[in-house]
Amino acid sequence: MLLYDTLRSGNAWKVRLMASLVGVPLERRTLSIDRGDLAQPAFLAVAPLGHVPVLRLPDGTHLAESLAILHYLAQGTPWWPDALPAQSSVLTWLSFEQDRHMKPLAQLRLLLALHPGGDPLGATCIAHARAAHAALGVLDTQLARQGQDGWVATPDHPSIADVALYPYTCMAPMGGIALNDYPAIRAWLDRMEHLPGYQALFPGQPERNLSTQEQP
Amino acid sequence: MLLYDTLRSGNAWKVRLMASLVGVPLERRTLSIDRGDLAQPAFLAVAPLGHVPVLRLPDGTHLAESLAILHYLAQGTPWWPDALPAQSSVLTWLSFEQDRHMKPLAQLRLLLALHPGGDPLGATCIAHARAAHAALGVLDTQLARQGQDGWVATPDHPSIADVALYPYTCMAPMGGIALNDYPAIRAWLDRMEHLPGYQALFPGQPERNLSTQEQP
Ligand SMILES: N[C@@H](CCC(=O)N[C@@H](CS)C(=O)NCC(=O)O)C(=O)O
Ligand SMILES: N[C@@H](CCC(=O)N[C@@H](CS)C(=O)NCC(=O)O)C(=O)O
Repeated sequence: MLLYDTLRSGNAWKVRLMASLVGVPLERRTLSIDRGDLAQPAFLAVAPLGHVPVLRLPDGTHLAESLAILHYLAQGTPWWPDALPAQSSVLTWLSFEQDRHMKPLAQLRLLLALHPGGDPLGATCIAHARAAHAALGVLDTQLARQGQDGWVATPDHPSIADVALYPYTCMAPMGGIALNDYPAIRAWLDRMEHLPGYQALFPGQPERNLSTQEQP
Repeated sequence: MLLYDTLRSGNAWKVRLMASLVGVPLERRTLSIDRGDLAQPAFLAVAPLGHVPVLRLPDGTHLAESLAILHYLAQGTPWWPDALPAQSSVLTWLSFEQDRHMKPLAQLRLLLALHPGGDPLGATCIAHARAAHAALGVLDTQLARQGQDGWVATPDHPSIADVALYPYTCMAPMGGIALNDYPAIRAWLDRMEHLPGYQALFPGQPERNLSTQEQP
């Protein structure tokens, strides 16, 4: 299958990470937002939502939104559990990620690391930082509740909710959000990074991609 | 089942609408954000995410996030289709709703209608209005593509994606977002409102709740 991504998209990283964890090979077509690739008619024809990630499926159709792509890739694996109560819990945390977690963390990384020039003490960054800490607080409390070897939404095996929440949590420090006060999150990041098939944002680069010096 | 909601929450309206469309009776426990009910320990004990809607299931557990609750209520009905390609499409549009659609429309309704005093020409409202129109443009294009009798994510029967996208779309005018330029959306709102079991935000109040004069 072919994945349309960008070099640094955390949402696209979720998809490559998931594919690697379940052993599905992906080809990549890496676009550039700065170059305007996502506004090209050729991309919009396969991606009416105008965003990456988009996955071309074996039947030639295209699937958008990381949440939907993770659900697709995880079919028939324990990453998308069979039982309805577990599915409900996974969907709760996937929705939380889209509604409250991803955006403030992604915006801070953009404003303070990828396109630096944002004012970390300006009203926009302060509002994002407050929202980011609120979301991380909720996540840390949930992980602490799930126990030492637990996962975000499911007890025994990680789910697509862990994969969805991982990238922007792990890159939070790039946007000035320290993880010191979130011990359950730090332990969970570590567990994620030791899963067989784990894949970094830039494979071969230093662990966790926490540096603000990403390659271009 | 017991639904924790607030009087005017669009996210909780999705759940009552879904329950009514599939014929599941709900009891309501209607809380007040202004009174601080959502910060009470008794609520947080059943709602770790701190938001409504939350549904108490028959086994006594509680389910948060409208997306997850709609998926739960729609099990075994055509509102959550069986086939994976249809499920993938439904999840794409549910994710779009959480990521790009709900927030700007809900914020404008809050700032300009529910807690009026927001400046419609201030930077915050302008940014929300731009995001809202971008999302409505994507939705209108999709509905036009689905054809005259079509639904957001599925061809023959509406899905939980229609239910999720309906409330904040229909209330857009309360936040100063006119729907004149979105003919496919207007036709779809009308189809939704003619479904057997359709339920208004305030049953018995005028259609579509488009007025800025909601009851308190
Ligand atoms: N809800 C989407 C979000 C996707 C998203 O925000 N993608 C960004 C890159 S990480 C994008 O394509 N942005 C396009 C742009 O900014 O023009 C998902 O989870 O896949
Ligand atoms: N992603 C959630 C959003 C829920 C949400 O935003 N609920 C609002 C009411 S519509 C809320 O509880 N707000 C609490 C507050 O503002 O303190 C869902 O879809 O259920």
